[in-house]
Amino acid sequence: MNDQKTNAPRASAKLPRGLADRGPADIAATEKMLAAIKESYELYGFEAVETPFIEFTEALGKFLPDQDRPNEGVFSFKDDDESWLSLRYDLTAPLARYVAENFDRLPKPYRSYRAGYVFRNEKPGPGRFRQFMQFDADTVGAASVAADAEMCMMAADTLERLGIKRGDYVIKVNNRKVLDGVMEAIGLGGAENAGRRLTVLRAIDKFDRLGLEGVRHLLGPGRKDESGDFTKGAGLSEDQTDFVVAVIHSAIAIQGKIVGGEAYGEAAAFAPHPQFPFNDYFVKSANVKFAEGISELAQIKTILHASGYGDDRIRIDPSVVRGLEYYTGPVFEAELTLEVQDEHGHPIRFGSVGGGGRYDGLVGRFRGENVPATGFSIGVSRLFSALKAISSPIVAGAAQRGPVVVLVLDKAEIARYQGFVTELRNAGVKAELYLGSSGMNAQLKYADKRGSICAVIQGSNERSSGEVAIRDLALGAELAASTKDRADYLELRAKAQFSVKETELVAAVRDVLARHG
Amino acid sequence: MNDQKTNAPRASAKLPRGLADRGPADIAATEKMLAAIKESYELYGFEAVETPFIEFTEALGKFLPDQDRPNEGVFSFKDDDESWLSLRYDLTAPLARYVAENFDRLPKPYRSYRAGYVFRNEKPGPGRFRQFMQFDADTVGAASVAADAEMCMMAADTLERLGIKRGDYVIKVNNRKVLDGVMEAIGLGGAENAGRRLTVLRAIDKFDRLGLEGVRHLLGPGRKDESGDFTKGAGLSEDQTDFVVAVIHSAIAIQGKIVGGEAYGEAAAFAPHPQFPFNDYFVKSANVKFAEGISELAQIKTILHASGYGDDRIRIDPSVVRGLEYYTGPVFEAELTLEVQDEHGHPIRFGSVGGGGRYDGLVGRFRGENVPATGFSIGVSRLFSALKAISSPIVAGAAQRGPVVVLVLDKAEIARYQGFVTELRNAGVKAELYLGSSGMNAQLKYADKRGSICAVIQGSNERSSGEVAIRDLALGAELAASTKDRADYLELRAKAQFSVKETELVAAVRDVLARHG
Repeated sequence: MNDQKTNAPRASAKLPRGLADRGPADIAATEKMLAAIKESYELYGFEAVETPFIEFTEALGKFLPDQDRPNEGVFSFKDDDESWLSLRYDLTAPLARYVAENFDRLPKPYRSYRAGYVFRNEKPGPGRFRQFMQFDADTVGAASVAADAEMCMMAADTLERLGIKRGDYVIKVNNRKVLDGVMEAIGLGGAENAGRRLTVLRAIDKFDRLGLEGVRHLLGPGRKDESGDFTKGAGLSEDQTDFVVAVIHSAIAIQGKIVGGEAYGEAAAFAPHPQFPFNDYFVKSANVKFAEGISELAQIKTILHASGYGDDRIRIDPSVVRGLEYYTGPVFEAELTLEVQDEHGHPIRFGSVGGGGRYDGLVGRFRGENVPATGFSIGVSRLFSALKAISSPIVAGAAQRGPVVVLVLDKAEIARYQGFVTELRNAGVKAELYLGSSGMNAQLKYADKRGSICAVIQGSNERSSGEVAIRDLALGAELAASTKDRADYLELRAKAQFSVKETELVAAVRDVLARHG
Repeated sequence: MNDQKTNAPRASAKLPRGLADRGPADIAATEKMLAAIKESYELYGFEAVETPFIEFTEALGKFLPDQDRPNEGVFSFKDDDESWLSLRYDLTAPLARYVAENFDRLPKPYRSYRAGYVFRNEKPGPGRFRQFMQFDADTVGAASVAADAEMCMMAADTLERLGIKRGDYVIKVNNRKVLDGVMEAIGLGGAENAGRRLTVLRAIDKFDRLGLEGVRHLLGPGRKDESGDFTKGAGLSEDQTDFVVAVIHSAIAIQGKIVGGEAYGEAAAFAPHPQFPFNDYFVKSANVKFAEGISELAQIKTILHASGYGDDRIRIDPSVVRGLEYYTGPVFEAELTLEVQDEHGHPIRFGSVGGGGRYDGLVGRFRGENVPATGFSIGVSRLFSALKAISSPIVAGAAQRGPVVVLVLDKAEIARYQGFVTELRNAGVKAELYLGSSGMNAQLKYADKRGSICAVIQGSNERSSGEVAIRDLALGAELAASTKDRADYLELRAKAQFSVKETELVAAVRDVLARHG
């Protein structure tokens, strides 16, 4: 019935930009990685939940202001009834919908984890995909910063479980309330300053990459980079800039106190760094948000300390901003600090492999009252690349050997060959019948390509004597590379291919498989 | 920064129609099920592959004829460059694209499996979802019917591995070539008869449900059902109808011969049933397609026979049609024949839980030359419901116990409580700190709701003596239900809650966990 189709124009066999296929080795390694993360999250008392890929666009909150079309960054389509649907762009917005929908039924606090693909309708680039995997954990209904501290500990434990050594990563913690308080103090509070606040936050976010001087320029008039490109700054005054920078350094000073193992009180939490002028803004900074933020960071530090998590694993870092607008309190960033080299010897830094924070307003979008919540999200694809680069045991060696291949030398005997295959499978040995139409050499090449350890061969001679030949493909390759001068050449050759009675097929194949572990 | 949001209109916390969330028990059970299917497929030498959720609509082949919009049955959206993208609606079309794109690199035949969600933009109903999971296996590059026979055996083995007993399922096999040959014989070949062919195929497809008489009516003038609704028939003459019905019965007769274990030759393959008139169409039926189809079924039967798969597991069934247009040869349907009762005592029949067939033209859409291919697809969601209904060990008992909950009785001591939790986790015991703000009773209720086996409690008394109380929640429940007259009441009560030194926390918790397996 499909003969007509051959006249149709040929379709092109390619994927849209920013999407990728995955082969067996990557799939097996990712599965091991996901299993390890899951183990870690379950140890922390989190339980699995899964939401579908499609949600009402409205539930995701991704409508552009003053437009009746969804944000261009999300894949959207209209349902029959004209409502807009979207592919999820993260796992947090769907969780907020889920919790709101099942609020009365769920235990509270509600701890859950989930892994899955998310979609961004953005311009793809090297390492930037339009479909990628996240692995999230969230605690909803817990106002206590103990929930935030726990997220950080869990992130640290998870990275170590994945084979990243202590010292090769750091979990950085900051608090949006501190940053919000700073904005208020320098007169950038209120809805009318949202744009400038964003510029200031973006400048702070670059602290890691540009250092203090670079950030100062971006907070002030602007910055010219090495290529000569100019980035316009936030236009803060010298005094304002000094204050922002002093706070960043103050927080670092706080952290120094903790490292010493000193008992920790809120009073000691905020002390400006002596190197920076104690200007007017420090007085204004005594606003509620700022004080709350510093106090929360101090409490987090105390809990981490009591649980034995030092600054080598988790530390306060004032430059952490996290892009998403919905964060309302502590924010976290998991960063790999190790450096590896690519195939050309160039250093690769992996940077952030996950992050999260407190988002007390997100569930409230559905309920009209805020619900405290905090979460952490791992960028699975990026972390996976890092694990491959450092050859973590979690992802190394996940690839499996191919099946035993039973060759077909006489097509009339195919049912007989299939019988051998069935016998092997019934004994729990991965096996397959060669199903193509090529000759013996091509069949052996196929077995090699599949990574098979051995092949089963029966020509007319073997058949008439009720025997099968077993070929050890790994040993065969070794033999082919060696010279006949080897003392054990004949012995090796006898091991590389030998015949047994049909009744001994399974035992003989098992022997060969055992040779190669 | 998100204070503004509280003024926004409240979003509604619900999912679009035909989509569903999943909780921890279903997720754990599904994972066990998928692992068992994977094990089965790997035993057959299939390897994993994964393709993304989004493809070019053109690559999926889902453009409506004479329209520049994709078929309404698929979720589609326009990319920046105006090309149409779609969510995959099955796992076969993306595989065809993948194989075509990587043709030279892949081993051939190429055996692969993949599981994943697919999407249909159709009207949802009870048990019909717009996102559901399939688990597919395909062999591409094998023209031999041995590949088709293998699909059937693998399907049977997989169902048994999932806990479905022999006799409670059947794999039905038919051949599209036989049906195509019948169409030619009764003069319904050619593109101009596509519509009527479809009506005939749909009639045959209902054989299972309506029986022979019902099918006869649908092949002829039409059929009135019990509710009085009339379905228009295909309008075949008496002679044509007799012929179609005779072929169906002939095939059943063929099958009878095989059951007897008789040696099987192609010559014996086709014998019309004596009960039906040997009319003119039987002569016309001697067309190439018809003969090929019968011969292929005979070969499949021979291979199955040699491998020990009898009619109790896999049998030829002429009523199997399979809806998808792209099948070109053998087609399979996996059917559960067992009957269970729902909570109201009504019988539930699960029917088809998977199917597949040969689709030699699908990869050819990209290459301009046909590439032989055959595959089998499991409807994971439907099969999962069946496994739950029969309490298959694969899905039963997958749910896990909740974590040990450390209560917070004094918020000033939260770091101390967190220390207990960390100690338990470091010992590999699932544990969590209670992170809400309720009192002791609510905290214990929370632990019950989480399915926790025990809780760890430290009030000021215990703290001052360096002790912790361990409460066995399972035993506690038992105690609460019993009377104080029990001879062992005091002993039980002592076991249900007891105190130990802080240093013995982990050992004591382990003892309690061990009590409940």
